[in-house]
This record gives sequence, structure tokens and C-alpha cells, in this order.
Amino acid sequence: MSKHPKCYTNLVERAREASRLHSIAALLGWDQETYMPPGGAPARAEQAALVARLHHEASTSAEMGELIAECEADSSLMSGDTQEAANIRELRRDYDKLTKLPASLVSALAETTSQSQHAWKTARENSDFKAFKPWLEKVLDLSRQKAQCLSDGKGELYDALIDTYEPGAKASEIEAVFTPLREKLSTIILNIRDNGTPPNTDVLDRSVPASQQEAFGTFVAKSCGFDFTRGRLDVTTHPFCEGIAPGDTRLTTRYRESSWTDSLYGIMHEMGHGLYEQGLPEGEAHGRGDVPDQSGLPCGQAVSLGIHESQSRLWENAVGRSEAFWKWALPHAKEMMGDVMADQTPESIGAAVNTAKPSLIRVEADEGTYNLHIMIRFELERALLSGDLSVADLPAAWNERYRTFLGLDVPNDRVGCLQDVHWAFGLIGYFPTYTLGNLYGAQFWAAVRNEIPSLDTLIAAGEFSPLLTWLRDKIHTHGRRYTPNQLCERATGKPVSDQPLLDYLTAKLYPVYGITQPSGV
Amino acid sequence: MSKHPKCYTNLVERAREASRLHSIAALLGWDQETYMPPGGAPARAEQAALVARLHHEASTSAEMGELIAECEADSSLMSGDTQEAANIRELRRDYDKLTKLPASLVSALAETTSQSQHAWKTARENSDFKAFKPWLEKVLDLSRQKAQCLSDGKGELYDALIDTYEPGAKASEIEAVFTPLREKLSTIILNIRDNGTPPNTDVLDRSVPASQQEAFGTFVAKSCGFDFTRGRLDVTTHPFCEGIAPGDTRLTTRYRESSWTDSLYGIMHEMGHGLYEQGLPEGEAHGRGDVPDQSGLPCGQAVSLGIHESQSRLWENAVGRSEAFWKWALPHAKEMMGDVMADQTPESIGAAVNTAKPSLIRVEADEGTYNLHIMIRFELERALLSGDLSVADLPAAWNERYRTFLGLDVPNDRVGCLQDVHWAFGLIGYFPTYTLGNLYGAQFWAAVRNEIPSLDTLIAAGEFSPLLTWLRDKIHTHGRRYTPNQLCERATGKPVSDQPLLDYLTAKLYPVYGITQPSGV
Repeated sequence: MSKHPKCYTNLVERAREASRLHSIAALLGWDQETYMPPGGAPARAEQAALVARLHHEASTSAEMGELIAECEADSSLMSGDTQEAANIRELRRDYDKLTKLPASLVSALAETTSQSQHAWKTARENSDFKAFKPWLEKVLDLSRQKAQCLSDGKGELYDALIDTYEPGAKASEIEAVFTPLREKLSTIILNIRDNGTPPNTDVLDRSVPASQQEAFGTFVAKSCGFDFTRGRLDVTTHPFCEGIAPGDTRLTTRYRESSWTDSLYGIMHEMGHGLYEQGLPEGEAHGRGDVPDQSGLPCGQAVSLGIHESQSRLWENAVGRSEAFWKWALPHAKEMMGDVMADQTPESIGAAVNTAKPSLIRVEADEGTYNLHIMIRFELERALLSGDLSVADLPAAWNERYRTFLGLDVPNDRVGCLQDVHWAFGLIGYFPTYTLGNLYGAQFWAAVRNEIPSLDTLIAAGEFSPLLTWLRDKIHTHGRRYTPNQLCERATGKPVSDQPLLDYLTAKLYPVYGITQPSGV
Repeated sequence: MSKHPKCYTNLVERAREASRLHSIAALLGWDQETYMPPGGAPARAEQAALVARLHHEASTSAEMGELIAECEADSSLMSGDTQEAANIRELRRDYDKLTKLPASLVSALAETTSQSQHAWKTARENSDFKAFKPWLEKVLDLSRQKAQCLSDGKGELYDALIDTYEPGAKASEIEAVFTPLREKLSTIILNIRDNGTPPNTDVLDRSVPASQQEAFGTFVAKSCGFDFTRGRLDVTTHPFCEGIAPGDTRLTTRYRESSWTDSLYGIMHEMGHGLYEQGLPEGEAHGRGDVPDQSGLPCGQAVSLGIHESQSRLWENAVGRSEAFWKWALPHAKEMMGDVMADQTPESIGAAVNTAKPSLIRVEADEGTYNLHIMIRFELERALLSGDLSVADLPAAWNERYRTFLGLDVPNDRVGCLQDVHWAFGLIGYFPTYTLGNLYGAQFWAAVRNEIPSLDTLIAAGEFSPLLTWLRDKIHTHGRRYTPNQLCERATGKPVSDQPLLDYLTAKLYPVYGITQPSGV
């Protein structure tokens, strides 16, 4: 490190301290969801608020601002495509974002979204949109103010919000990809509905004890490459992956005896996130002797929600729902989950886990229809933010789109526009990252299959490391060095497009439903 | 709170913030021992160091010092035996202790004890005292400097160290209690050895699956009053109790199939600590609607290690090793631990768990001989600190005392003076708190039996709440409002003495060994 100018060394130290506070906050959050007894909740809220304050102070200190400016003025640091230059650029990005928001707006947002979550919960239970309406209006109003501060009055307001989750993404560009994708996805789904023969899915409904699900899921995660010496798997109501700190990535899942696929694909999904976290350049001290230590710095952090989601969806769907995967996994599943699997073949189970059928609830949607749910939310929240759609008109607009895109009647707002917590949380601009993740994931999948033609054979033999190595080299190891789009172009040679996802879905779903693949989709 | 002067309100706020940082450090430590994957260790060390620094800064800030001084100058706050006056007095105590130590000494102690722990580990494995000798000399040298800073050159150096763990305790006063106690304990032990008939202890060696031990231990803890909505029980290599935060007290234990009493009494011991923590006045927000909110303030904190240990030993030994306890517990044990207990009666098992036999290792010692181990350490560490004993002469002095007090030859230093980690950790003055705990515990036990004559009958019926209520009223709810000695006098009417412990041990051990109790012990 002595090769660096003093200002950079100091900046690294400041950034790592802020990052350490963030990692402490992550542990507080993880413990709250896993092991904290209920009586600890009030004290935990106080601890979390204190750490959040200390983190904000550390991230927005005058010293941090001065060190960033000093580094930016040093041409030896800023020239060339280096990790140092990327770290400085991204620390500037974070610093500006945090310092642009007035403290009064930050606390108003925190308070309002805390209250609106409670309001949403009751409103959803009672399917009472009117009760949630004033809260959504407040959240939107504050979100507009936030977007105005972040955008300095330039460009579409929505872009300033999505940029928080997906650096560089623009609503107009997303729209340009989503609109044709929606038509083509609808065509596939309707074709399946009208002309397909659904696979036999009996095996999905068979009961499997939680302990057997856990043993099998853990075995799969370990086999795919998740390092349990640098991570773990626990049980929570809502599954998640938390990169607590370098060398410490924690997954959670839930076990329902009546749905073993829920835990298996839940684990594979979170494991995909976890493999990304474990693949960041954290250096030898944190168990990655093969990479430089960028821990606590932007180049050691995940670049965006979309890229994160691409990793989880790739492992969950492209790998986990493939026949090749089941060629390897089925004998192990038979051994660990017993009679349930006795009558299955890789073909039968590979078909059963790939049904595609329009449904009302996003989180229960299958791979074929999921993105239609996202597109609806993207359109609606963008219109709500711009004011083109009034909150009062939201339920009607929601229901109309579910009828058009998915052919479904929404019986009430509980299973309609009140189903997701995101807007109550103030997460406007978050939804499109799910579909961006699917698009990136399919594009990465196409690229790696192209570069490793024997990938199916390797997976069928339980050899996952060539795939993981490819993802590490192309994605994980770069952290925030490149923007999501740059990363996509570097990894696949092309900007993100809808074609890989469409190719992937038709190639998988049509055979499952016994449909001869039409040309030109 | 509006009734308080502004300086007190501000002081409370500062103290609570420092306390919150301490509670975050506690969670980091708990997680490290329970669930953290090994790869998280380097990042955890960095997080812990950061929180320790922030805690030290918050506890020693100039603002904190000024607020304490301002409160001390306010006679409305300082007059009378109030929680406010006690909080100010104890915050002053803490502040002075922390600010008296120069930063250079604090870091020298941290560094030296970190290294000496490693040296001790290897030295113990190899039974190589010479390898540990220079480290113990360094630790003693730094401990002397620490004691000098804390004592301002007044009184015996050792007193300044023990005061950290047991406020107000003095070596000369401890000696005055320990010396006669040692003689009398030796008499009991030798009488048992020479004239007693050992009970049948077959039941202790029977194998019990870990899951059954856990179910029974959890049931016992819940029945005794440990609130699992405000605490939990996990597994670690070394059992401990950590009061993480208000409303969040965590116990740990370990399960060896070959020793079910190890986990049962381990759980009851830590549960005793935990009941104390759960009994502190933490206010309604943290689940104690019956007491004022002193959370994060001295009156909401445990007063000393000795008082803490009195609670753990009381539940573990006075309750858990009594015939009355087994009258209640045995049917449950038979149900939960099966055949192992089939041939037992409350009398047989009550005898089996009360053997008393001299042994070399402190942590494996029984109730009758345990304090002799402590007294040896107290004498030796006091002489080491004063310089009356040189480190080179420690092994000979140790072995000589084990021969005199316990009638045992020490075959090597591994099972001799290298067996405990305390000195390597720099914990000089800590050992006597174990025996003080036993003395306090026996004295509290005698007092509560006197006040509730039906206590045995209640315990035999599984009614533990009268005992817990007494402990809450007399001990737990006061936090640090009174010194340990004041607390003892208020609860039992007398200063601490050796008589209750001697009475308790003879009343229990002589019948177990079939010895008619001699008069006048």
C-alpha cells in the first residue's frame, strides 16, 4: 500500500471504517431476523438507529469529502482503468448521494415509511386500499423530493431513484427493453395456455420432512460452491442473503413440509446471491488468497441489485431447473429425501419444476410469468411518480393490466395492488431490477454456454466449478469497478437485450408443454 | 423525566449511548462464539476493535466528564438514597477508572495479554512453565502499573484491581474471611474422606442423548423463571451468560452424552446469571412493566462479579443439588431422559450430585472443595503482585498448597499452575469473586429460607417464583444502587461471613456421606 499517495491511503481507511459500521448494522439485522428473542426488539431498534447515525456521520464527514477531492486532483490516481480510480469515482458517487439529501428529508422519509409499513399491513389484511392511499401519497411526495435533490433537477425524476439500486439505469432505456419483451412473453404464455399439455407435477406436492429438505439443500449449496467456512444457512420467515462482512455471508430459508421445492429453490436463489458476495475481492485475510484485498471499498462491493439478482436467478432457474442439474441431483435427492423421489427421472422432475401459468401473486409466480408482474409495477410506479397516474386510480390501473397482460381478473386489492410491501417501504424504482436481473442472468447464461459448450455435461456430472469460475472472472471479482451495463458488455460482448431471456424460456418451456418451437420468437 | 435538571437528562442520554455501544460489542462477542463462520473472524476482530474504540471515546468524552461534574454540583440530585444519586456516583466511578489509565498502558495491556494468551496455550499444552514465565512477568508488571494509576498510590495495589470486579472489596478483608474458612473447609473435606461412605454415583455416568438433555435443561430453566421471550439458550464450547441488551439475555451450554449433569448444572448456573440480568430494572419497554427504566444506567447494571456468581451458584447448587428440587424434577427427568432415571429416587439422585472429593482441576471441582482452589489462587496472585512471591517460585508454591489444603500431589504444571487462563488474560484480582459469590450465595440462601420457611416444600412442588421474587426484591432490582456489601447487609441483616456457607455444606454433605453432624463447625 506504500505505493499509494497518502490521501488515497487515508481515504481507504475512512471508507473501511464506514463500511465496518455498515457490516455491524448488517449483523444487527441478521440477528434480529434469526435468533433475537422478541424482548430484545426495543433495544435492537435503539442499537440499529445508533449505528445508522454513526455510519451516516462517517460516510458524510468533511474529512471524507476532502480526501475524495484530494484524490480526484491527483492524476496518478485517476488515470487509467484501475481499481483505485474506480474506488474514488464510486466513493464520490456515494458521498454526493448522501450529502445531497437534507437531514430533514432523510428523517421525514424514515418516519413516514415506518408508519406507512404499519398502515400497509393493516390495509392489506382488510383489503382496504382507501386506508393506505394517504400513506402512499405521502411516500410518493417525499420520494419526488428525494429524486429532485438527487437529480439536481436534471432528467426524469424516476431515473434518480432507480440509480440508487441500479447505477446508470434509465427509465426510458428500461421501457425500450420491457415493452417488446412484454408482448413476446405474453405470446409464449398464451401459446402454452392454449396449445400446451401441462407436465405431471404430483412430485411437487409430496410431503418431505424439514430436516431432509435442509440436508439436501445444504448439500446442493455446498456442491455448487458455497463455502460454509465463510458463510452459513439459517431459518427465517422471509428468506434472504446478507453479506455481513468479508468472509461472512449468511443465507436463510424456510421449510414447509408440503413444499420441498420452496426451500430447495429458495436456497439456490439465496446461494446465487451468496456466491456473488463470496466472490468479491476480499483478499487473503478474508479467505480469498487469489484476489487483491478490496474489502470495505467499492471494488469489493456488489455493483447493483440487477446484477445481484442475475446471480440468484441464474443458479435458481438456469441451473436448478435444468434437466442436466437433475441428472446429477436426483440420485442424491433419492438418497436424502427418500421415497418421494422414487418414481422420478431427470426428465420428469425437470418438467415438473418448469410449469408456467398466470397467477395473481408476484412472489409465487413462475419463471415464465414473473417478469409480467414486474413490468406492471414498473409502469405504474413510474406513472405514479410523474403524476400521470393518481393514487386514487391505482387499483383500476393495476387490475386492467393484470387482465391485459396475464388474462386474470383481480378479485380484491389484497391480492392486487396491496400485495407488495415495497411502496410502503419507500422503495420506488426497485422493482425493475428484478427483471433486469432476469435479463442479465439469461444473457450471462447464454454467454457461458457459448464459451463452455460442455456445460450441460459438466453440470450433469456435478461439476459446477467451471461455471462458478466463469462468473467469478466475469462478474464477481470486479465489484463496482464497472457499471452494470459495462459489466454486461465485457462479459457477453453486447448490451443487455431481451433476446437471451426469450430464447432461454422458449427453449425450456415449449418442450415441457409439448409444443414444437415456433421460429422467429 | 421532565422533573430532572437538564444536566441529568443529558447525562442519561450520554450514558445510554455508551451503554448501547457496549451492548453491540456484546452481540458481536456472542455471535462470534455461537454462529459466526470461521471465515468471518478477521472482519469480526476489526468490528470489535472499532466498537471498543467508539465505546471508550463515548465513555471518556469531555462532555461526559462535564455533565457528571455538573450533576455532582446539583444538591437536588445528590441528596438522599436515590437512583439518580447512585447513577451519578457510579458514572463518576466508571469515568475516573477509564480516564485514569493512560492510552499507552491500555494498548500495552491489550497487546501483551493478547500475546500472553497464545503463549499460555502452548505452554499449558507442553506443561512448560518456563515458556510462560516471561509473559506472566510482563502481565504482572503492567498490572502493577494499572493498579498504581487506579489507586493514586493509596492502599494495597491488589485492592485497586479487585475493585474493578468487586467494588469496595479489600484484600485484607477477604483474607480475614478466607483464612478461617480454609481451615474449616479442610476439616469437612478430610472428615468426609476419612469417615464417610461415598454415595452411589452410577447414574451420573449414564449416557443421555444431547437432544434429551437440551429438552430437560430448557424445561428446568423455564420452570425456574427464565423468560425465553427475553432470552435464549445456545451451544458453545465454553458455557456463558451474556446480557446482550435490555430484554435480551443469552445463555449457552454444551452437551456431552456421557455427562448429563454437566449440561444440567451448566444451564442452571448460567440461568442463575441470566435471572439476575432479566431482573435488572429495565422498564416497560424492555418487558419489565413492574420497575422503572434504568436500562443503560448503573442502576440497571449488575453490581459485581461476586454478586453475579452468588446468583448462579445459588440456583446451580443450593436449588439444583437439593433433594427438594429432585422431588419436583425427577418425574420430569424420567419422562424426558427416559430409562436413565428409572431406578432413581429424589434421595438417591440428591446424594449422587453431592459428592465431595479433592481434585486437581478447579473447573471440575465439586461444591465442597471448589473454594479451596480459589483461596490458593487468591493467596498466590496477591503475593505475585506485591512481589512477595517471584514468578519463578510460583510452581513450587502452587504445588505446596495443593498438598497442604487438598492433600494432593501435583504431577505437572499443566494440571497445576498453568491450568487457568485468567492470569494470561491479565485478570488479576478476579479469582476471589468466585468464593465471594459462594459466600454471598449461601448467606442469601440462609436468609430466604429463614423468611420463607416453606421454601423446600414450594421447590418440591415446582413453585420457584417465591424464591425468584425474593431475589428480585433483595438483589436484582437494585442494580448498582448499593455496593455488594451494602446489598448483602440489606438482604441478610449482616455483613458477609463464612458461617452460612459452612452451615450449608455440613448440613448437606455429612448426611450424604452418612456422617453424624458434629456440633460447632
